[in-house]
Amino acid sequence: MNSHRTIFALALAALLPLHVGAQTPPPTSAEVLANAPSDAWRSPDPARTLYLDLPPGRVVIELASDFAPAHAQNIRTLAHHGYWDGLSILRAQDNYVVQWGDPNAGSEQARPLAPAKRKLPAEFDRSSDDLPFTVLSDGDIYAPQVGWVAGFPVGRDPATGRTWLTHCYGMVGAGRDAAADSSNGAELYVVIGHAPRHLDRNITLVGRVLDGMQWLSTLPRGSGALGFYEQPGQRLTIPHLRLASDVPAAERSTIQVMRTDSASFAQWIQARRNRREDWFISPVGHVELCNVPIPVRAQP
Amino acid sequence: MNSHRTIFALALAALLPLHVGAQTPPPTSAEVLANAPSDAWRSPDPARTLYLDLPPGRVVIELASDFAPAHAQNIRTLAHHGYWDGLSILRAQDNYVVQWGDPNAGSEQARPLAPAKRKLPAEFDRSSDDLPFTVLSDGDIYAPQVGWVAGFPVGRDPATGRTWLTHCYGMVGAGRDAAADSSNGAELYVVIGHAPRHLDRNITLVGRVLDGMQWLSTLPRGSGALGFYEQPGQRLTIPHLRLASDVPAAERSTIQVMRTDSASFAQWIQARRNRREDWFISPVGHVELCNVPIPVRAQP
Repeated sequence: MNSHRTIFALALAALLPLHVGAQTPPPTSAEVLANAPSDAWRSPDPARTLYLDLPPGRVVIELASDFAPAHAQNIRTLAHHGYWDGLSILRAQDNYVVQWGDPNAGSEQARPLAPAKRKLPAEFDRSSDDLPFTVLSDGDIYAPQVGWVAGFPVGRDPATGRTWLTHCYGMVGAGRDAAADSSNGAELYVVIGHAPRHLDRNITLVGRVLDGMQWLSTLPRGSGALGFYEQPGQRLTIPHLRLASDVPAAERSTIQVMRTDSASFAQWIQARRNRREDWFISPVGHVELCNVPIPVRAQP
Repeated sequence: MNSHRTIFALALAALLPLHVGAQTPPPTSAEVLANAPSDAWRSPDPARTLYLDLPPGRVVIELASDFAPAHAQNIRTLAHHGYWDGLSILRAQDNYVVQWGDPNAGSEQARPLAPAKRKLPAEFDRSSDDLPFTVLSDGDIYAPQVGWVAGFPVGRDPATGRTWLTHCYGMVGAGRDAAADSSNGAELYVVIGHAPRHLDRNITLVGRVLDGMQWLSTLPRGSGALGFYEQPGQRLTIPHLRLASDVPAAERSTIQVMRTDSASFAQWIQARRNRREDWFISPVGHVELCNVPIPVRAQP
């Protein structure tokens, strides 16, 4: 396959040790990954991690308990009691979202939510106080400031003192009706296309997919309005959606996530901003929030 | 399905006729589409339109002859002579690109390009002179100015007088090796994820998918480096990739595209910037280039 013209090739053959020196260029993305120390990585907390196990593979979701505590707790309760097991993927809209939940929601056949709550407050944003914030200095079209808090992409407004999760690829949210407080976490959606940032602060984001996005992004698109499947037989049944802490340790995912407050992540941002790989011809010099994927690796 | 919590519902029930008046709010997206006059729509020129016919459906691609004339001409020649018929989808990398071409490229078994050219100039940008430009006033992280030229999203630099196509969802480019002028249009890629705008001006974009993105975006992701399929049997064979003008008129797609220099498109931008649908709670007030999809409809 070496002969294929690719649109980006990692300079894996040119891994260099990191050392300080005026003549040393900043590391490339591949160099950052190869040289990140073990303390630049963290293992997600099983008590706030979901496994959506679909027939072709596992989707690993980290809950954003610091931003949506009520939703995260309700989702943990739902998962612990097997609420989604046997329910369905309801919707796949191209370049937008995949959504799952109860096909019978709102009818007499609806699966009961109890002991989870039927009603939760909207959790669109929160106070910036005490939040460790890794700023992205490149600006943003939608928010006064953007960056990362504990592994999640965020917007922030210094004038109001508020911080909120942003709808980058792979973010997970709680579907709602017209009322701001009409979500309860039983219907979840995942962004599978270009970041629909206009949804920020209009709906409660509850987490982020750490691994397995391809099992959602490749689902057949629904032919109905908003990408809903029109026939029950078109819906993929969900075998299991469980809390990682309810899964035997031997069956848990072993992925690690780069800490967004680490020196390695700062290098990673810089490597994404100024692409130093040989393939690039024009310097880029800027990077947008949702174009900085947060690195994941298998536990060494 | 009415009971499902959706994350966005078009206010289709509230279509209003457009009329001038201080009390009339700007139209929503649905209202713009419903009220766009016939001259706001155009039918793509069959001589610059490609049909990538895959088993599940047709992908319609409009060539950007004004930005990549040499590539567009070579691609037209390749399509006219059936170059891609029986070749394969080679690569599907999640949140990035799908790419197709000759699995044997570079070997003795490679399919000959002739009468198309083996070598073309890089066509990364072009003079802004004489280009009709619809500006998006909301700013951009990557380019001094952004907007649209004749149906394509573009970046523009008033200081240099150059304009270039941008890597929004659905844009089509010509894979290249390390050398800037190493693409010839025989290997094409399509953006299937968040806009990789760092590729702008680093590679030749040649067109845009007008319809059928789902037949590419749902392809299984390749497990090799950069999303290449590792086994030949994993590659989807391309039945036909033809110029629309080589297809009998009765078999042609009847889609129409909203003109990006129309008053309707200006309303569309505004409707995407300030979401007036009842579902939205916080005003947005800004929109990013790649979050303004260009409307397509079936010919009435």
